[in-house]
Amino acid sequence: MESSIGIVTPQRMHFAEPLALQNGSTLAGYDLMVETYGELNADRSNAVLVCHALNASHHVAGIAADNPKDVGWWDNMVGPGKPLDTNRFFVIGVNNLGSCFGSTGPMSLDDATGTPYGARFPVVTVEDWVNAQARVADAFGIRKFAAVMGGSLGGMQALAWSIMYPERVGHCLVIASTPKLSAQNIAFNEVARSAILSDPDFHGGDYYAHGVVPRRGLRVARMIGHITYLSDEDMATKFGRALRRAEALVDDLKADVGAHGKGNGNGNGQDDGYRFSFDVEFEVESYLRYQGDKFAEYFDANTYLLITRALDYFDPARTVGGDLAKALSHTSAKYLIVSFTTDWRFAPARSREIVKALLDTRRTVSYAEIDAPHGHDAFLLTDSRYHNLVRAYYERIAQEVGV
Amino acid sequence: MESSIGIVTPQRMHFAEPLALQNGSTLAGYDLMVETYGELNADRSNAVLVCHALNASHHVAGIAADNPKDVGWWDNMVGPGKPLDTNRFFVIGVNNLGSCFGSTGPMSLDDATGTPYGARFPVVTVEDWVNAQARVADAFGIRKFAAVMGGSLGGMQALAWSIMYPERVGHCLVIASTPKLSAQNIAFNEVARSAILSDPDFHGGDYYAHGVVPRRGLRVARMIGHITYLSDEDMATKFGRALRRAEALVDDLKADVGAHGKGNGNGNGQDDGYRFSFDVEFEVESYLRYQGDKFAEYFDANTYLLITRALDYFDPARTVGGDLAKALSHTSAKYLIVSFTTDWRFAPARSREIVKALLDTRRTVSYAEIDAPHGHDAFLLTDSRYHNLVRAYYERIAQEVGV
Repeated sequence: MESSIGIVTPQRMHFAEPLALQNGSTLAGYDLMVETYGELNADRSNAVLVCHALNASHHVAGIAADNPKDVGWWDNMVGPGKPLDTNRFFVIGVNNLGSCFGSTGPMSLDDATGTPYGARFPVVTVEDWVNAQARVADAFGIRKFAAVMGGSLGGMQALAWSIMYPERVGHCLVIASTPKLSAQNIAFNEVARSAILSDPDFHGGDYYAHGVVPRRGLRVARMIGHITYLSDEDMATKFGRALRRAEALVDDLKADVGAHGKGNGNGNGQDDGYRFSFDVEFEVESYLRYQGDKFAEYFDANTYLLITRALDYFDPARTVGGDLAKALSHTSAKYLIVSFTTDWRFAPARSREIVKALLDTRRTVSYAEIDAPHGHDAFLLTDSRYHNLVRAYYERIAQEVGV
Repeated sequence: MESSIGIVTPQRMHFAEPLALQNGSTLAGYDLMVETYGELNADRSNAVLVCHALNASHHVAGIAADNPKDVGWWDNMVGPGKPLDTNRFFVIGVNNLGSCFGSTGPMSLDDATGTPYGARFPVVTVEDWVNAQARVADAFGIRKFAAVMGGSLGGMQALAWSIMYPERVGHCLVIASTPKLSAQNIAFNEVARSAILSDPDFHGGDYYAHGVVPRRGLRVARMIGHITYLSDEDMATKFGRALRRAEALVDDLKADVGAHGKGNGNGNGQDDGYRFSFDVEFEVESYLRYQGDKFAEYFDANTYLLITRALDYFDPARTVGGDLAKALSHTSAKYLIVSFTTDWRFAPARSREIVKALLDTRRTVSYAEIDAPHGHDAFLLTDSRYHNLVRAYYERIAQEVGV
């Protein structure tokens, strides 16, 4: 694996002051895993906060010191000479509260009981994350970020930052995001959560004590997620109706002879490609199973529940009668909103709602709709038009802050 | 419940001749549940076969004699004075092989072992169903159907009828269907199957012997299905982000006090609507859970696997190099193809592929794209434009066959 940023090491930051959460409870103290790239300048004006989405972490760019295969999730975007150029900007990645990559979350020990929080970990919100991140900024002595940036759920955090701490955000970059989930978005999350909650290995969230993980539920949850991350067109291009290739099939048959149905039935000869079973038959099935299995190896089920719920709850206009322009009326950031044409999870129309609300309340906003075939995942992929756009935007920020 | 067709009783038809299946195996004999409406005329020219989709059955119309709440699944379409008028036509509904409403399937006893087939029931295809249905026609002495009609998977059967038995189909009505599943369609089926296959209560398909059913898997499978049956717009109209209403909430809290997270935390007062838990919070969640629970009560998991696989495998152009026009070149039916604008499961573009192929091979085809907000489910709902169109088409058929 390569990365222009080289090897990176995260730091664990402890925050001893209690944090009041939106659900009414208080977290006595907490740790956050933080990774930084580049150098903070003397007047601390070149800091950029990058917020992560569902399954990512503080490890935004570079190669993890403890695992040479672990390249940061936005390494194509952040680094020396990259669109967000770490030769000019000081970039901070924070693993959110409740996540499972070292920050305080359901796997952490609850001092009150001496056992992992599990399902007792409070249901945190995007706003709670922003409040927790603000203390990271304080710890670095950063009064105002040059920019707060994120894709998908990360974009929601950037938007919330601009609303909750207007004086602390110079620019707000909201990519492939939405001002709130639709009923269909919530429905997909609910099915994923149902798969986890109904897995017998979930044990009401206390599976740690049982030495198991709700792997089956996590696997199904991730498979559902993956369908919504890719566009129909992209799936058609990548997989179509192609049958799984023969060599993989042979391995499979060796391992699993006649487990289901008739197995390798060639029948009347006209169907030599089909196996007539529930094993992997089409490439797309193989892909989904692989993604599901891989995810279930490393991701915590309680975190999956928490983060999908944070997505569901996000709705900054809710407390002002659903009027997004009103919710944004006290902001002072300038905005870049980016969407992707084939993203059906958070379609361009959802980004345009944000743009319209910003214009309605006379904010400064740039909007780009990138013609890309890769669905929601496009925000993570290398695309020259998209990257050049972000690069040009950061050029402008660099000029403003003089770096 | 009301139905213009009144009370109906199905008949069980036994077929003793072995049936060769597409997977290469042979079914020694089988039963099919059959329901009919109207009267077969003297020259047996007024018969219409109605094919069902995933979770439906032979009970197309009328009120089941053994359950006054059980109205047929297409009762708004079939009956005296309905678009498919049983005063003129003799309509047949057949529960497909492998289904769970009385026809031979995974729940049936395998004479060879004296136990239910379970996962050993052969993986049947659309073409197998058509061959089995042809024997029903034979039993009634019907040489040629005035029409074969179906929606979704039922439409695939109608299309296959016109290809496999060209001389036996006068008209072919293919509604809200597709010539083959896309990668995304297969992906959704695969996730649903994974939920069932990984449910510990599945027991490799032999759950009957264990006195359990894989309820959790079925529930998740049905929830996924429901998302794809409704349009995003329809979900937004029906549910939006509405929170579940208070009275239901109180019932829920009584039954399930503090089961997850902080429960009824009203917090800082600005979030009086949110409960910050993984229980039902939004209306759409309540709807999905209800649909999932209801389905798991009555549907057989092995049947779910089989029928989704039949959907995956359907691809009449596969054996002729992917050329659908070639696959349709020996048909002699006239076609009516109908799609619905907001159907994203089988979008209008998929129906237009069928229309294009029919035109390419110079068949007679009428096509209608109905502007309806209800997604894939629209084919089952009452819509005057849709129903008037089908009514007019059957008028024409009635004139042709002289009824």
